Amino acid sequence: MSLVRSNIGAMHGYTPGEQPGDVSVIKLNTNENPYPPSPAAIEAIRQVTPEQLRRYPQPDARAFRLAAAKVHGVSPDMIIATNGGDELLSIVVRACAGENDTIAWLEPGYSLYPVLAAMQAARPMPVQYELQGNDWKLPNGLAGISAKLLLIVNPNAPSGTLVPVEQLSELAAGFGGLLLVDEAYVDFAPQSALPLLQRHSNVILLRSMSKGYGLAGLRFGYGIAQPGLIAELNKVRDSYPCDAVAIGAATAALQDQPYAQRTWQRVIAEREALTQKLRAKGFSIPSSHSNFILATVPAGRDAAALYQQLKDRNILVRYFALPGLRDKLRITIGTPEQNSALLAAITSLLS
Amino acid sequence: MSLVRSNIGAMHGYTPGEQPGDVSVIKLNTNENPYPPSPAAIEAIRQVTPEQLRRYPQPDARAFRLAAAKVHGVSPDMIIATNGGDELLSIVVRACAGENDTIAWLEPGYSLYPVLAAMQAARPMPVQYELQGNDWKLPNGLAGISAKLLLIVNPNAPSGTLVPVEQLSELAAGFGGLLLVDEAYVDFAPQSALPLLQRHSNVILLRSMSKGYGLAGLRFGYGIAQPGLIAELNKVRDSYPCDAVAIGAATAALQDQPYAQRTWQRVIAEREALTQKLRAKGFSIPSSHSNFILATVPAGRDAAALYQQLKDRNILVRYFALPGLRDKLRITIGTPEQNSALLAAITSLLS
Repeated sequence: MSLVRSNIGAMHGYTPGEQPGDVSVIKLNTNENPYPPSPAAIEAIRQVTPEQLRRYPQPDARAFRLAAAKVHGVSPDMIIATNGGDELLSIVVRACAGENDTIAWLEPGYSLYPVLAAMQAARPMPVQYELQGNDWKLPNGLAGISAKLLLIVNPNAPSGTLVPVEQLSELAAGFGGLLLVDEAYVDFAPQSALPLLQRHSNVILLRSMSKGYGLAGLRFGYGIAQPGLIAELNKVRDSYPCDAVAIGAATAALQDQPYAQRTWQRVIAEREALTQKLRAKGFSIPSSHSNFILATVPAGRDAAALYQQLKDRNILVRYFALPGLRDKLRITIGTPEQNSALLAAITSLLS
Repeated sequence: MSLVRSNIGAMHGYTPGEQPGDVSVIKLNTNENPYPPSPAAIEAIRQVTPEQLRRYPQPDARAFRLAAAKVHGVSPDMIIATNGGDELLSIVVRACAGENDTIAWLEPGYSLYPVLAAMQAARPMPVQYELQGNDWKLPNGLAGISAKLLLIVNPNAPSGTLVPVEQLSELAAGFGGLLLVDEAYVDFAPQSALPLLQRHSNVILLRSMSKGYGLAGLRFGYGIAQPGLIAELNKVRDSYPCDAVAIGAATAALQDQPYAQRTWQRVIAEREALTQKLRAKGFSIPSSHSNFILATVPAGRDAAALYQQLKDRNILVRYFALPGLRDKLRITIGTPEQNSALLAAITSLLS
């Protein structure tokens, strides 16, 4: 008899992007912020006491929840803090969908979603974006699908495109299950679905400290939803999902909005510049509202080969050997110097 | 329609022990180590760089796994690192038991186990310890139960008692599912079930950095098992369960075995002294191999009232309003000063 469930034995785990130990690599493959976190976050870590390490942390990351409630203008019982946004996804999936319940998501999207569905032995319902040139649109009739849970990354990964909030509002109104809007990249976008929470009790937002706040190494994410739903999710989370060091650093980083917003402005400016320059070289790129772009290589070029050639030059971008993505590279926006190095390498390789 | 599954709606979440913000409380209720972590762990945290925070951490906590493999004399592919031992429990439950599969555990034991089973909509099979005076024994025929997973805390919480390794070996040989031995407290015990892993592919050990290494605030645990099982569990874990700060600090603490072992020796000496002194006052206490004791209050006394009276004096111990535990207090071993204060308070309250 196998020791593990048949659905676990049959599935493949999620493959994270490469995390090279070598810090000289120009790393534009996993959507980290090119700028370090707020000095206040570093200082919070320096100030951690042995006594804080010795004792269990706040079970509910109270300090962070109070700070997040203030930043977003909601009540603290509308916030759940988790060990990275991925843990929130896992909690929501387990809370809402049992075996053979349907979990739907938009594709191409975050490739963790099908893994989470397989783990739960749920019925997977991938729904394709409607592509009109570089426009990534929600398909007609999406609200009418029958599913316990619908997952949408917005701005989307890997396309960087944004579904307008009004469309998400219509979707929430018509959809019979829980709508999770994964706003991991929203700090680089002009709008958030936050206003929907007042009108729709079947919406939960996912937020991450990994991108907008330069804290990918810390593992800190959170969810925002009506208190009743948050109370149910709290039953499913671990007793102490966030550690004392992470709570302190994430709280400090979130409270330093001026610092974070400066990094977002810089990333957005660089994103626009890089998009224009790559388009000028023949790449096709949807308008991104995120900290990365999805670039279709010029006609006659091979995206997988270009990925490898860049890697050989110590520049890592992301290539997905998946339907609809095989002619594309997902490129994280780096510092001006990193983006220049990338452009120079691409110019040389395509010449 | 409810947004959450019926089993989630019907269940109650786990209730962690109180975590008072007030550091003047003598906190003997959640089994933390009374001594701070190794200075090497503190130093590792002080040395964390902004760049480590900005980038994603090692997905598999490689640095820690190499250190743990060396300490335990196993190969690194026999180690999985998790965000606290609780996350390992959640991973194992999800990997091994689907809806209506049976999960068994010994009772009274860790009260998180029934919560994890309810979360998974699994069939719960609590099995009672066979109590002979202060002896907590595995019941006859335990190996013959039909379950996907059997969870045993050893040394047990809340009793502190130890099932000999030979009995666990017999159990593993006869049992048809996965046997998880939760060794969260093993650092204070004379033996571990580690040798079983060579002979039994259906055994996994849980270890924690919270107790033996004074790092409850950091959330770091790990599992040890045959590589085939670890590979399956890796499919179910998050992409980056352990953060960069925690990996560094946990690795440093684990490598400083001399420091950790000194704290264990002190705790053990204090445990023996406190046990004798409380027994002399009429408490009945099984021999503990952990960093806490389970004390049955003297005849005619009320354990719940004593808990409250101690709390009124700023001393927190743990009281469980559960079958078999209502006449008992679980008391974490503190520093000599804390234990003296506890004894003085009890002497005064019982006089």
